[in-house]
Amino acid sequence: MSHINIRSLAKELQLSIGTVSKALKDSHEISAATKLRVLELAQKLQYNPNPYASSLRRKKSNTIAVVLPEVADSFFSVAIKGIEEVAQENGFHVLIYLTFERYLKEKKILEAFRNGRVDGILMSVSSETMDTAHIEALWENNIPVVFFDRVISELPSAKITTNDEDISFEATSHLVARGCQEIVYLSISKHLAINNRRIAGFQKALQAHELPCSAGQVIDCSNDETDNDRLIRQLLLQAGRPDGIIAGVEKLVMPVYAISKELHIDIPAHLKIVGFSNSPLAPILNPSLTTVTQPAYEMCKRAAAVLFRAMLKKGFVPEHETVILSSTLLPRDSTGCLS
Amino acid sequence: MSHINIRSLAKELQLSIGTVSKALKDSHEISAATKLRVLELAQKLQYNPNPYASSLRRKKSNTIAVVLPEVADSFFSVAIKGIEEVAQENGFHVLIYLTFERYLKEKKILEAFRNGRVDGILMSVSSETMDTAHIEALWENNIPVVFFDRVISELPSAKITTNDEDISFEATSHLVARGCQEIVYLSISKHLAINNRRIAGFQKALQAHELPCSAGQVIDCSNDETDNDRLIRQLLLQAGRPDGIIAGVEKLVMPVYAISKELHIDIPAHLKIVGFSNSPLAPILNPSLTTVTQPAYEMCKRAAAVLFRAMLKKGFVPEHETVILSSTLLPRDSTGCLS
Repeated sequence: MSHINIRSLAKELQLSIGTVSKALKDSHEISAATKLRVLELAQKLQYNPNPYASSLRRKKSNTIAVVLPEVADSFFSVAIKGIEEVAQENGFHVLIYLTFERYLKEKKILEAFRNGRVDGILMSVSSETMDTAHIEALWENNIPVVFFDRVISELPSAKITTNDEDISFEATSHLVARGCQEIVYLSISKHLAINNRRIAGFQKALQAHELPCSAGQVIDCSNDETDNDRLIRQLLLQAGRPDGIIAGVEKLVMPVYAISKELHIDIPAHLKIVGFSNSPLAPILNPSLTTVTQPAYEMCKRAAAVLFRAMLKKGFVPEHETVILSSTLLPRDSTGCLS
Repeated sequence: MSHINIRSLAKELQLSIGTVSKALKDSHEISAATKLRVLELAQKLQYNPNPYASSLRRKKSNTIAVVLPEVADSFFSVAIKGIEEVAQENGFHVLIYLTFERYLKEKKILEAFRNGRVDGILMSVSSETMDTAHIEALWENNIPVVFFDRVISELPSAKITTNDEDISFEATSHLVARGCQEIVYLSISKHLAINNRRIAGFQKALQAHELPCSAGQVIDCSNDETDNDRLIRQLLLQAGRPDGIIAGVEKLVMPVYAISKELHIDIPAHLKIVGFSNSPLAPILNPSLTTVTQPAYEMCKRAAAVLFRAMLKKGFVPEHETVILSSTLLPRDSTGCLS
């Protein structure tokens, strides 16, 4: 029974293959009675159309890809949930591809999409991505791409982001208001537009508050945990160490807390910290973490909605639309604001 | 240039389609000189074989699926990393499918696999899954499935788990040793074998320590946050409330901490808690969390290795192999063990 195909259905029903195929597609050329006979037998014999053959015929996969740098960050795990919901409403499958922050992996993943494996792509770029040819190549194949969170500013594509510069300005000003004088920003990648917008907000706030602003106040962290530990340890051991830190990405919070504890630097008395994070654990950290929290769920619903609109359009042109949603600063104990 | 196929390559090279096809597959029937001509033109014209057509011919997709209940749990986000590494070494793609703990979604995902979309499956079942017909149907289609973490005990398939009963016995005994007399277990689903093994270990430990052991000491939580909050609040407000809690899944730790704080129940003085968790944030929670930590990375590497062995076998029979790895109890402040 595992080799039921249109041919065997046709033989059993004494119909032509074309008639069975059209009946299965609910064609108006076929009578209701015939459709019923075909569907009843197909159901009885548990006929499953071959997805590859079917994709070839329709040139549609009914699948969207979500390309993400990782899933260990709360932002991305919330994002997946939002995307899945919109896809489900539209009857689409979601496939998740992880780049693990590697440009070469991202390039390879996108190359495999060129021949119709997916109908559209939602994407947050890796922290290594500088070249964009692999993304532009998708447009040549009429595959729409919508960026969210980590976008490539230069590309004429739809982008759903948050107010990164403004919220970073606000977070920095919050640290100043809490008494910090020596503030540093822990950066994850100088190639990411999102990171650079956050740095711009940080630097503008320092200038606005007439605090010194030097290149040394932006610490280039990476995706290597050992390197990050070393950089943060060095930072907290130096003479004139910072009294305020902005962690530009969730995973940099953990080493700041751990190393401060080890070095007996009290948070928030001697060091205050704000983290960009969607972690549900932020309120129960020791001390509870002041966060900049992005509307991850809302962002992804918007991104998915724009993608579905782009996929339905005839005559492909990449959508060039920018949506900017607002993040929220949530003051907690790590900046001396008892919650 | 977007319609380069074998036919157009053959025409340009004045060769037969069969010759070009064989040359692209590095067939011994074709001379080295011809192969070179074909490959050079294919590269020049950026010829990409259509993945669906190619899959149909080979009946292989070079893709494995990872079916998970969610990614917001640290165990699963670490697991993905381990699987991806093994797949990459074997030249395979990894597709991630999320069931969001829904049996019907899991069933739908597995049904779509029956016709060769993937070559093998690594899976942790949803908390709702009781019926197994959707999994057995894959075997009829010769698609191997290897379970990890959340397995279905009754199925004759490969299973990679941890020593859940023993480690739960150890965690409960740890709470007893720290002075707890009224211990409850927060359960995520009574349908999951993993959960039932953990409950068995919990109950055996209570009996071994001659503590009362009633059905009421296992609290059935769910995937609904509001319901869980209500159950935990009720538990902590009742007369004779527990002085020890085992959270059988990571996401139940957060509401226990939050509600205890709200009700001024001091952890660990008045309530001690152990959580099954792989979260890197466990050491910096307030108080730091005593955890049972599974060897997530190692488990997934093993599971992937067993799957690749099963996929390479001729004459398909599901692998029936059980691997049990050891979890680790890491005592921290939430059970009064200052780290």
